[in-house]
Amino acid sequence: MSRRDPSPGIDRRALISALALLPVLPEVFPPVSARAQTESGAPLASWNDGSAKQAIVDFVHATTDQGSSKFVPPEERIATFDQDGTLWVEHPIYTQIVYCLDRVSVLATRKPELRRIEPFKTVLSGDWEAMAKLSMHDLVTILAATLTGMPVREFEADVKNWLETANHPRWKRPYTDLTFQPMLEVLRYLRDNGFKTYIVTGGGQDFVRVYSQRVYGIPPEQVVGTMGGTKFGYNKDGKPFLTKEPRLLLNDDKAGKPEGIHLMIGRRPRAAFGNSVGDREMLEYTGAGDGARLMMLVLHDDAAREYAYGPARGLPNSKFGTFTAALDDEAKKNGWTVISMKNDWRKVFAFES
Amino acid sequence: MSRRDPSPGIDRRALISALALLPVLPEVFPPVSARAQTESGAPLASWNDGSAKQAIVDFVHATTDQGSSKFVPPEERIATFDQDGTLWVEHPIYTQIVYCLDRVSVLATRKPELRRIEPFKTVLSGDWEAMAKLSMHDLVTILAATLTGMPVREFEADVKNWLETANHPRWKRPYTDLTFQPMLEVLRYLRDNGFKTYIVTGGGQDFVRVYSQRVYGIPPEQVVGTMGGTKFGYNKDGKPFLTKEPRLLLNDDKAGKPEGIHLMIGRRPRAAFGNSVGDREMLEYTGAGDGARLMMLVLHDDAAREYAYGPARGLPNSKFGTFTAALDDEAKKNGWTVISMKNDWRKVFAFES
Repeated sequence: MSRRDPSPGIDRRALISALALLPVLPEVFPPVSARAQTESGAPLASWNDGSAKQAIVDFVHATTDQGSSKFVPPEERIATFDQDGTLWVEHPIYTQIVYCLDRVSVLATRKPELRRIEPFKTVLSGDWEAMAKLSMHDLVTILAATLTGMPVREFEADVKNWLETANHPRWKRPYTDLTFQPMLEVLRYLRDNGFKTYIVTGGGQDFVRVYSQRVYGIPPEQVVGTMGGTKFGYNKDGKPFLTKEPRLLLNDDKAGKPEGIHLMIGRRPRAAFGNSVGDREMLEYTGAGDGARLMMLVLHDDAAREYAYGPARGLPNSKFGTFTAALDDEAKKNGWTVISMKNDWRKVFAFES
Repeated sequence: MSRRDPSPGIDRRALISALALLPVLPEVFPPVSARAQTESGAPLASWNDGSAKQAIVDFVHATTDQGSSKFVPPEERIATFDQDGTLWVEHPIYTQIVYCLDRVSVLATRKPELRRIEPFKTVLSGDWEAMAKLSMHDLVTILAATLTGMPVREFEADVKNWLETANHPRWKRPYTDLTFQPMLEVLRYLRDNGFKTYIVTGGGQDFVRVYSQRVYGIPPEQVVGTMGGTKFGYNKDGKPFLTKEPRLLLNDDKAGKPEGIHLMIGRRPRAAFGNSVGDREMLEYTGAGDGARLMMLVLHDDAAREYAYGPARGLPNSKFGTFTAALDDEAKKNGWTVISMKNDWRKVFAFES
């Protein structure tokens, strides 16, 4: 089992190095292609028949049939899903990063002096080339300024408002429309069969919780993400409230995913879904348990309907969300199922006609 | 609203200063008194009629009746319970501390050199007076040695084994028999009415999770406790596992309770139950939300059937688990309900005839 991946991909630890991808944003994207309509009462209706769909169905049958030697009691039916690139689009840049950048403008209206202070000055300039050159220290400053320091409830309201107005540059639709319909069907199919579904993301836990119920049917208590501390205090009327602090408790990526799963769930998942080297340890940890286990990886090989990036299997390299050749090898060796977006999904988005 | 409590009680932050209570252990305790049998199919069968029982019933009716202006959608029905002194006996010493002390003996059989090293030498000596004088640094050393450094699964197996053999000094029964029957009935009554029940304890999250399902019907993912970090790694066969690290992520006591609730649940509870100053912030946070809320505090005023300690209402002082006069005042002011163990509970333990 390979412990170290020779991947040139950017460590999700530096979530925000994705900022380096900003020059991609203004590019012209290929048009969204229309595909055959799907959606019916049947489970997994947006999946083509094939080994990926079959692996999901077989797993559910084996774990829920009381007569099966692989039967799993309902309370142990835990399924974990990475978010970015697994449940929704992660290109050209993580949605949460777009939020942070937009947020800098809002901050500047309140504190005009930021317009003269780096790195805010650069972000506000709209000069993509300059932004791509921001240092890690600059990026951490931007994250800290936009994700911490405010009351939790104010942050949640800000994210909610932003999601209602911001659009993805390619589809010109809210980011929350860009979830993968086949994966929403997997979530529902597992829940209909007694599984508790969790998001396990490198993104901010508080960020994802704002929309997880509405978009994925996953309640806030089932979102495991990168976690920051909060501080309990009282306002001037003596009313208690929590403030988001710039104190990292757990970076929920790579080895941090099984660590976060233990912290938040305390059980080993029965099924885990990912799409990149950031999900490898979660799949390894899931697969190390006894009995029936399902490990799956989404391969983005569909430039027409979504994006194509690897670098496995000759796909173009990507600065983040990397599906490397080593990951592909490990999947083969461990019996993890690779989902080909192009071949396994009849439909990618719910809004396709 | 009082932010600072003048209580002389020991900060739960120093969980282990409870060690200072060790001299109490060998004392002779009053015999357990037998009481009228209870237990029937009716909810809250071990409760006497009165304002405490009525407050619980009224809250459940108001929040679950669709016609009520205080109706709460099922997904928002979150109820949190402190453990020590609220769900089970916390005297003469927290159960987890007894585990840590017992564990020192086990460690010494593996590492005989500990017999010559302080503070282990003192703990192994059985000299209660010397143990009571151990410094905070010594106590942290004992906690770190007995609760961290091992694989998570090994720790879980050790706790499970210990719970099967250790007995409480007064009742000569396993600690897990010493849960309060009326509180088990509240847990069940709330769950039967669509509430998700959580433990929110200053005790170790991993420790409580070992028995939470069996003893309280609460699954591990609904246990919020003092949290330490874990480290993901591989054994010599390449199999992944997690190791418990001596790194505190969150001290789930006092202000740490609402912080832990936000971290692990991400929602404000609708109901919260405690018994000491360590629970005050949790009850304040719960009460600060809109709509129907239920905040309750167990008062230990029953020396015959359990223990009597305050120091509120003229009850004897206690070195931990303190119900102070200031807490009592805040309860009155905020409309929190105080549960008198003596008057409100027909039965304390399930094993009473």
